[in-house]
Amino acid sequence: MGPVDLSAFVHELATVSGRAILPFFRTALTAENKARGGLFDPVTEADRAAEVAMRRLILQSFPEHGIVGEEFGTERGDADLVWVLDPIDGTRAFMSGLPLWGTLIGLLSSGRAAYGMMHQPFIGERFFGDGHRAGYEGPHGSRVLRTRRCDNLGQATLSTTSPNIFEPAEGAAYGRVEAEVRLTRYGCDCYAYCMLAAGHIDLVVEAGLKPYDIVALVPIIEGAGGVVTTWDGGRPESGGAIVASGDPRLHATVLDILRG
Amino acid sequence: MGPVDLSAFVHELATVSGRAILPFFRTALTAENKARGGLFDPVTEADRAAEVAMRRLILQSFPEHGIVGEEFGTERGDADLVWVLDPIDGTRAFMSGLPLWGTLIGLLSSGRAAYGMMHQPFIGERFFGDGHRAGYEGPHGSRVLRTRRCDNLGQATLSTTSPNIFEPAEGAAYGRVEAEVRLTRYGCDCYAYCMLAAGHIDLVVEAGLKPYDIVALVPIIEGAGGVVTTWDGGRPESGGAIVASGDPRLHATVLDILRG
Repeated sequence: MGPVDLSAFVHELATVSGRAILPFFRTALTAENKARGGLFDPVTEADRAAEVAMRRLILQSFPEHGIVGEEFGTERGDADLVWVLDPIDGTRAFMSGLPLWGTLIGLLSSGRAAYGMMHQPFIGERFFGDGHRAGYEGPHGSRVLRTRRCDNLGQATLSTTSPNIFEPAEGAAYGRVEAEVRLTRYGCDCYAYCMLAAGHIDLVVEAGLKPYDIVALVPIIEGAGGVVTTWDGGRPESGGAIVASGDPRLHATVLDILRG
Repeated sequence: MGPVDLSAFVHELATVSGRAILPFFRTALTAENKARGGLFDPVTEADRAAEVAMRRLILQSFPEHGIVGEEFGTERGDADLVWVLDPIDGTRAFMSGLPLWGTLIGLLSSGRAAYGMMHQPFIGERFFGDGHRAGYEGPHGSRVLRTRRCDNLGQATLSTTSPNIFEPAEGAAYGRVEAEVRLTRYGCDCYAYCMLAAGHIDLVVEAGLKPYDIVALVPIIEGAGGVVTTWDGGRPESGGAIVASGDPRLHATVLDILRG
């Protein structure tokens, strides 16, 4: 069974994780709970419940597969097929009640991102791809995802988590890119990459990413026609400093600027 | 007929505006359209279509009411009951494909914000209030909106559009508040006020607002137990520099800090 055949299983993982998370979203951390030393933290509880639910389903269905998860670490990391899970990407949005967070479900095949999904269970939308094609299902219908053409940095919309995520040398390089673009947005986490795949923004530049922050997004971006690499042009599966572009020509331009 | 009885009509306005906007959301501005000089701008088209639909319904149902709209200006502004409309609050989110924008529908009664709704038609959620009560309807159910208690600035979550929206003197005052809070989020527009009413964030501090940016949100915030005024403690209906807090004690503290 090749990775592409696993797409129905990925939808199943998204469904069980969404069911585990939703009871905790927009649940207030009450004054009582705070007084008890914050023992009940909705986002941590939701994160753990969703990762447990996904791990259980993977173990039942594919006990030979590896798993890398944000909350519970790595099992069988040397397996040929390894699931890479981030139950809640965008915890600060989650804590503020904003539905701009997502569940990231990625599959590595021999170390390469082969299938990925971003699921937003509150809105009910799923972005998914296998590196060759990418698709979307949401509350108002389904469609193919395609990046938009934009080869001119002065016309580009850029997104990053925050201008403060960078080390000093990275920050200077990032600043050279931000100075050239038309519009910059902060704080969109996984949504930035999905909006790039959907053709609404052109560029995401970030640093300090973990593998579970990016693996699931790579086959969506690549499947939609975009390019995602490290700042030095290498494969992005290990995370670190990442640049994604909807238009390969813009990606090349930005790598040049980041190199200085 | 008092303003409270108009709540069913406000839901009707939200429904017609949502129908007018949705066909334009996540519609790409194609290269072809750009080449023609950007004659087709989805967010402007959506803004206009929604305001036309709401104005038509108001004129049919209540020809004696006044209307203030972001796109088409003021009619009968001296009427006792005046509708204040912003079809798309959060145009930059809209342009980036992010569902963090909303339609604001407010009703002034003798100059005072008497009823308001924020409608997000893509997600399908409505926040509404009459100054005494506030409620929510969304894809996963309905509930009463209540702000949360937080009288300590060091524990507070703050939201503002951007640290760059302020005039220099305002920016210094704003900076004194931001320096004290636990967490700051940028770029949430109308969602910030609704998350405050829902008890997920504690404080919104902004400047340069127009009446149509704030009138609809006032009865939601007040109805949920919050306080919203200008920076000098006056009524917020005319916009300008605005501070909203879920906890009246925190509001008093912040007014003192803003005064310097």
